[in-house]
Amino acid sequence: MAEVKVQTHRAMADRFSSRAEGMKRSPIRELLKLVNKPGLISFAGGLPHPGSFPARELAEICHEVIQSGAEISLQYSATEGLTSLRDLLVSFMAENGLKLDREELVITTASQQSLDLMGKIFLDRGDLIITENPSYLGAVSAFKSYGTNFLAIEMDEEGLRTDLLRRELEALQRRAGRDYLREKLKFLYTVPDFQNPSGITMSLPRRRELLEIASEFDFLIVEDMPYRWLRFAGETLPMLSALECGPDDRPCSGFRRVIDLFTFSKILSPGIRLGWVTAAAEVIDKLVQAKQSADLCTSALSQRIAEEFLKRGLIPARIRQNCDIYRRKLAVMLEALEQHMPKAPGLCWTRPQGGLFLWLILPEAMNTEQMFAAAIARNVAYVVGASFYPNGGGHNTMRLNFSFPTEEEIREGIRRLAGLVASWQ
Amino acid sequence: MAEVKVQTHRAMADRFSSRAEGMKRSPIRELLKLVNKPGLISFAGGLPHPGSFPARELAEICHEVIQSGAEISLQYSATEGLTSLRDLLVSFMAENGLKLDREELVITTASQQSLDLMGKIFLDRGDLIITENPSYLGAVSAFKSYGTNFLAIEMDEEGLRTDLLRRELEALQRRAGRDYLREKLKFLYTVPDFQNPSGITMSLPRRRELLEIASEFDFLIVEDMPYRWLRFAGETLPMLSALECGPDDRPCSGFRRVIDLFTFSKILSPGIRLGWVTAAAEVIDKLVQAKQSADLCTSALSQRIAEEFLKRGLIPARIRQNCDIYRRKLAVMLEALEQHMPKAPGLCWTRPQGGLFLWLILPEAMNTEQMFAAAIARNVAYVVGASFYPNGGGHNTMRLNFSFPTEEEIREGIRRLAGLVASWQ
Repeated sequence: MAEVKVQTHRAMADRFSSRAEGMKRSPIRELLKLVNKPGLISFAGGLPHPGSFPARELAEICHEVIQSGAEISLQYSATEGLTSLRDLLVSFMAENGLKLDREELVITTASQQSLDLMGKIFLDRGDLIITENPSYLGAVSAFKSYGTNFLAIEMDEEGLRTDLLRRELEALQRRAGRDYLREKLKFLYTVPDFQNPSGITMSLPRRRELLEIASEFDFLIVEDMPYRWLRFAGETLPMLSALECGPDDRPCSGFRRVIDLFTFSKILSPGIRLGWVTAAAEVIDKLVQAKQSADLCTSALSQRIAEEFLKRGLIPARIRQNCDIYRRKLAVMLEALEQHMPKAPGLCWTRPQGGLFLWLILPEAMNTEQMFAAAIARNVAYVVGASFYPNGGGHNTMRLNFSFPTEEEIREGIRRLAGLVASWQ
Repeated sequence: MAEVKVQTHRAMADRFSSRAEGMKRSPIRELLKLVNKPGLISFAGGLPHPGSFPARELAEICHEVIQSGAEISLQYSATEGLTSLRDLLVSFMAENGLKLDREELVITTASQQSLDLMGKIFLDRGDLIITENPSYLGAVSAFKSYGTNFLAIEMDEEGLRTDLLRRELEALQRRAGRDYLREKLKFLYTVPDFQNPSGITMSLPRRRELLEIASEFDFLIVEDMPYRWLRFAGETLPMLSALECGPDDRPCSGFRRVIDLFTFSKILSPGIRLGWVTAAAEVIDKLVQAKQSADLCTSALSQRIAEEFLKRGLIPARIRQNCDIYRRKLAVMLEALEQHMPKAPGLCWTRPQGGLFLWLILPEAMNTEQMFAAAIARNVAYVVGASFYPNGGGHNTMRLNFSFPTEEEIREGIRRLAGLVASWQ
């Protein structure tokens, strides 16, 4: 009998990094796959409505930037991005209240990359960051993968509770010492406009208060602005990055403390994966070094498309059209909630002035994770709110997206959801 | 006199992560900026020749995938990539000798992202990886940022010296113990075809020997194949991933040990930032989780463009055309080297059968870093070879790119370079 050669090897699962062992698939990305279940109405995604894509203009632009400039649009670009696009975005930011030099702006492969790069350049294992509670899941996952701890601060209708933030920081300083905060506390992450997931906008007094606290405790602020130009109601508030500047358009303290993340995903198309970051030149420089390892450079084709779209002055019309679509959809969702949801103590929802999401809070005794299978059985989906709490909590909350479903689907979906809530009480 | 409020804050430089403190800008990416110096002939980049881009076809395809399918091409995609493209690539791989299931293939935002994700999912601080010496700078930087150590193995004209590799591993095992290797040695990284930077191709016996050693010492192999379809001469050799499989097209050991990285950068366009990875389903699954944090998903527009290009059967013609252009350019460079370079002991260069680069070795006493400023003064640029040595060395080497400059520029550039070498001796 021939000798049998036995192969022994370690299982693949034992070969991953400790970082990778802690990774989980995002519940939202996994939920996106359910969108294809026939008959299911999904409030779970965060997708712009495809009807809102400027397909005709983009098809033409794309053809042109390849046909007449392939040596740029099909080639590698500099890691910082195309100079022509950076300069256009510097002008665009100036129109939006933030004056910058080119060296203070860099192109990224959309905001998720910007978030990951924030982690890469700032976070060591055991560092501390501050977030709103709840906070954007994609940011929390990215930061968590760097082994960071979270100080998650509750919100009310004016956004992050700066009074609680101050109290928590003072307590932490007493408990752990000033040096601990100085060394470990790297930044506060916020989505001030139409927050993901809550839909809440930070008020002007809170913005000012937050900047004061940041200066007092000397931490940076990462201001994520994916929905900045999706305001359907109320007045535009100044960005934190603009508020920290004086009449000479430079930071009053001489130190640019706010880092802004922007994306083309909601004003043009998420399919081109394009965003930009504004920050102190030193931060941009470090970010570029990290980006070289992450993906060398962002798609030159995407950059040229966005550049042409900006140059032709098509952005304002696109923003208006988006706002019109989403304002209407939000109104339909609010109306349906009013009409169908049972009147129960503690059951309420937010009324956003923009963005893609609203936040539904059920009575304390209910648990949206436990209800999820029943929701799918009724052919309606949402995102379990607990996913957005960095340190746990929020069992009775859910995030509802109103940008993707049609108005009819919104009405019918909320009816189904309300039926589920009523049956579950 | 009013009280002056003194703002005190930590310098930005003190806020970065320890990972970021170690980051340096890539000398190659920095050199790319020099390409614009008037009159300079650059052998420094790694850019495909823009004349080789299929601009007409891509302009038309791009127009079509937006015009008639914006709901896919302008939208977010699943993190794994579009199913339709994954399936096409599974077929493409089968035609190229590697049979896979869809779950063993994932789309990435080109190979630099794939490399970074390899680091993210496998490497802890203090882990060990094996590379060729010299090795691809982008890979070395990406892996270094995870705090890894390098065992860099010399090459000869048949590629990685497997005899040295075995000897080094045996010595390391004796010195540090079997458990050290089991726990710390994560993978070997290789570019077997027309290596970057050396242009050397690993011979078939070496490929077989490498697989045996990998099995014996139980490490994974990351096989980077950016130039797989840029062979101008000689016979195509089987990929390591194919060699580890038996007649049933599954790995003989029941364990898929080889991970392959591919990119569209050299067969279609680097401007669309698109690549793919093939590996055991468990690795792909972990990679997808890491990719969710890195950039959510790859550009759907880029994916749809590549898919159409593949579907229309345009890849083979594009590969032939590329090979024709680069074969000719390489021949011109080799001829110019023969004609102009001084005959000095130890001065030699590689004769690649494909890819974008050849490798020039000067006499031991010369130092290409010290010569660099003089080269720029003579209006010719190269990449300093020492950049490619993970643990130092290679002071007398340089990488020359022959794909980007015109034939005339190659002749004139090599003449200038030879003049510099002659003057420096």
